[in-house]
Amino acid sequence: MLGRVNHVAIAVPDLEAAAASYRGTLGASVTEPQALPEHGVTVAFVTLPNTKVELLEPLGDASPIAAFLEKSPSGGMHHICYEVEDIVAARDRLLQAGARVLGDGNPKIGAHGKPVLFLHPKDFQGTLIELEEV
Amino acid sequence: MLGRVNHVAIAVPDLEAAAASYRGTLGASVTEPQALPEHGVTVAFVTLPNTKVELLEPLGDASPIAAFLEKSPSGGMHHICYEVEDIVAARDRLLQAGARVLGDGNPKIGAHGKPVLFLHPKDFQGTLIELEEV
Repeated sequence: MLGRVNHVAIAVPDLEAAAASYRGTLGASVTEPQALPEHGVTVAFVTLPNTKVELLEPLGDASPIAAFLEKSPSGGMHHICYEVEDIVAARDRLLQAGARVLGDGNPKIGAHGKPVLFLHPKDFQGTLIELEEV
Repeated sequence: MLGRVNHVAIAVPDLEAAAASYRGTLGASVTEPQALPEHGVTVAFVTLPNTKVELLEPLGDASPIAAFLEKSPSGGMHHICYEVEDIVAARDRLLQAGARVLGDGNPKIGAHGKPVLFLHPKDFQGTLIELEEV
């Protein structure tokens, strides 16, 4: 079921500083920051040969990463996103196996314009998993 | 400088249970567990089309992931490993930029038999970064 790792997301308190550190200190290519008010984040991507790292900064009052950064103010690895071919089939398989899908269980349109679901970290060794249909 | 994401490492309290969950619930291919006493971990890899996820269970009394699991008993994302072409050149560039390399600053032979270095999470938004020469 799991396909490629689409991205690894890192929550950061200061996107400009994080992008500068990946560009300058680590010598990576980083896209320009993009504000996504409907998702409560500003994002920039570290582009790597085989996948990407998504740097996420909270945007607005109800950012989904605000609680994470309250607990870890300097930031940290937030989730890992895997590609799946059919997100409804994936969801049904997960529910049948007893795994919990966050929210109302229906795929939403994610930050990349594709249908996504998030799985409960307690069912996967403390790791927040996003599935994205590609 | 940063090349491919070689792996994303997840610390888990029970490797057998974690492997079963990635195999069964998530439908991924997982290698057989391998004990690496000299590194204080038992590892299994979730093999994905573009990279891998390294599941790490503590082994022995002085495991480098013991403290992490004390803080997060159910597990969690532990580090991300990027490939570099020349680890000594990478190290020198990082030190010049003011970043901290863990340990004595010299590359060690890592769990995959290749020279590796770890960078201080405080210099990279709370993310523990491993560099591996390939």
